[in-house]
Amino acid sequence: MLAQAPIPDFTAVIPAGGIGSRLWPLSRSGTPKFLHDLTGSGQSLLRDTWDRIVPLVGPERMVVVTGRAHRAAVESQLPELLDPNILLESEPRDSTAAIGLAAAVLERREPGVIIGTFAADHVIRDVRGFRRAVEQAVAVARTGLIATVGITPSSPAIGFGYIRADGPLEIEGAPTAAKAVEFKEKPNLATARRYVEHGDYLWNAGMFVARASVLLEWIRRTEPALADGLAELAEAWDDPARRGPVVDRVWPRLKKIAIDYSVAEPAAAGGALAVVPGDFDWDDVGDFAAIARLHSGGRKRDLAILGESPTVLADASTGVVYSHTKRVISLIGVEDIVVVDTDDALLVTTTEHAQRVKSVVDALRVSGHGDVL
Amino acid sequence: MLAQAPIPDFTAVIPAGGIGSRLWPLSRSGTPKFLHDLTGSGQSLLRDTWDRIVPLVGPERMVVVTGRAHRAAVESQLPELLDPNILLESEPRDSTAAIGLAAAVLERREPGVIIGTFAADHVIRDVRGFRRAVEQAVAVARTGLIATVGITPSSPAIGFGYIRADGPLEIEGAPTAAKAVEFKEKPNLATARRYVEHGDYLWNAGMFVARASVLLEWIRRTEPALADGLAELAEAWDDPARRGPVVDRVWPRLKKIAIDYSVAEPAAAGGALAVVPGDFDWDDVGDFAAIARLHSGGRKRDLAILGESPTVLADASTGVVYSHTKRVISLIGVEDIVVVDTDDALLVTTTEHAQRVKSVVDALRVSGHGDVL
Repeated sequence: MLAQAPIPDFTAVIPAGGIGSRLWPLSRSGTPKFLHDLTGSGQSLLRDTWDRIVPLVGPERMVVVTGRAHRAAVESQLPELLDPNILLESEPRDSTAAIGLAAAVLERREPGVIIGTFAADHVIRDVRGFRRAVEQAVAVARTGLIATVGITPSSPAIGFGYIRADGPLEIEGAPTAAKAVEFKEKPNLATARRYVEHGDYLWNAGMFVARASVLLEWIRRTEPALADGLAELAEAWDDPARRGPVVDRVWPRLKKIAIDYSVAEPAAAGGALAVVPGDFDWDDVGDFAAIARLHSGGRKRDLAILGESPTVLADASTGVVYSHTKRVISLIGVEDIVVVDTDDALLVTTTEHAQRVKSVVDALRVSGHGDVL
Repeated sequence: MLAQAPIPDFTAVIPAGGIGSRLWPLSRSGTPKFLHDLTGSGQSLLRDTWDRIVPLVGPERMVVVTGRAHRAAVESQLPELLDPNILLESEPRDSTAAIGLAAAVLERREPGVIIGTFAADHVIRDVRGFRRAVEQAVAVARTGLIATVGITPSSPAIGFGYIRADGPLEIEGAPTAAKAVEFKEKPNLATARRYVEHGDYLWNAGMFVARASVLLEWIRRTEPALADGLAELAEAWDDPARRGPVVDRVWPRLKKIAIDYSVAEPAAAGGALAVVPGDFDWDDVGDFAAIARLHSGGRKRDLAILGESPTVLADASTGVVYSHTKRVISLIGVEDIVVVDTDDALLVTTTEHAQRVKSVVDALRVSGHGDVL
């Protein structure tokens, strides 16, 4: 098959910010989730993300928003990334600030541009299915709506949020796009089962495609002070002499709010959000259970062994081992185990309790062990 | 209570040889089990053993048989040990050689001496009960029999061997001593239950008390070449100029055989073995399940945390954690877990599988990881 041409007038924005606390002690502030190889692909999730998206937009239209502390790591992972296209946050201010900054800067550089936001730390293997969905989403965005790609659930997952889709929108170039009418937080298992049986519920994968100007209008409508700050930042951004002082003054005062609350939910309520069903594999690799799941291909009897040249002797054991040390690791008769072995911290839990890792991180912080976070 | 006087003419022999492979990676060739604090007492099992036995014999009658490699560690643990009373093996040759050497050397130094052998790595807390049993065993030994102390079982343990006791012997000073008629290897659970219900079966704790000359006679009867070697060693032992060459020549050729097979079982079959029931707590701390058991006092819901200043955050977890590193260890929702964290090796298993640790050690040896053993 021939490589396909990029989608015209379309820029990809990759927010690379989340630490991934549920993946401690692997992911931590200094080495967040997107810098790790969690799939065994031999490269980081960020690089996997680049490779998946760059054919859709071309390398000049790839933009990454990340923290100052991660600049060197990101540049080393993505040598093709243009210097003006790495947008540095002086501190994390949540996703409305990160995506809004990209939208505001890109709209100034190229009025009318359509942007798509794609997390740096999700896993998608079906690149063709992904592209088909994004092409539809861009077609939706050209009509002035905001599009999201919702994943057709393969199981009643309780770790994801859901989007309820309604009747088809009949947009040219987006035959399966539907109205997105409601967002649902992570459900319990009974509710998740109802969603999957119902058929109109899709996993919220946090992908949004829209004209930059449309996103900014919604931010202005719901968070006007934040929109003012973003406009001020964008106005100074491409002037090297002015950017620094404006960032230092404006950025730390931006409201921390997820784009789901500032844009997606209000837009859905206002009839301005469409959802394109994505019939491809997708995982946000939110915890170690997800890593075990990704590696076992759904089989229960596997042990995933990850890390740099791990030495693992396992007997009658299943789950996942991640080794960042040179130590010999021996597992005997432990099922669905999670072992994460790093120089200064060791985690032992089970896939069943993988979501509780975040509470350990909180406990370590308050008990004065912040040096291992 | 006043301290009691030592038992006259009685010398204690402490073989300090076993590595304790089932306690890998904590116990290993360089730092065997007897050098570790497995009880949380704040000192090694060897030192605990010394402290328990020295009141019975006095410090001049304490003898330790150990490997050359452990000389410095043993001397540092036992500064009161007299220099002639540390008998060094050039390499491990099993318990008949170790105990036979002590018997032969001590018999030459003091003909007619009664010796008692007590492992360096067992745990006994009831020192008074222990002394009462040993006093009876010495009374038995004075009659020319070999005495062993068998532990009254507190449970149908499958990890210990058993001794079947028969009718009482009516020896003066040893009112509860009985004939030992048979040794039984580690049984299965059904058999162990039958033993405990039967009432005449005692745990084999590997303690033997006899005249040194009597032990040597049995070795000569069953293993004459070994007895010749021991005689040759003993004859040269206390001559510093001659000892080295004789050890180098004779020791490596001694047959490797446990004293259970060379002495105890033949003596039982020949009507020459008595058993004194020991009504005190005893554990050979053979695996990590034993460590968990010792620390929980039988309670299932406890997590034993051992090692040098361990930093452990545990949530809904039970079992045992041994940390020899400075790392933060976090356990979440793991029950009956065994985690042993050392600089070059990590073990994760459960108390149920604790006996299988030895097979991992074997697997590591054949797979070229002998450096961590």
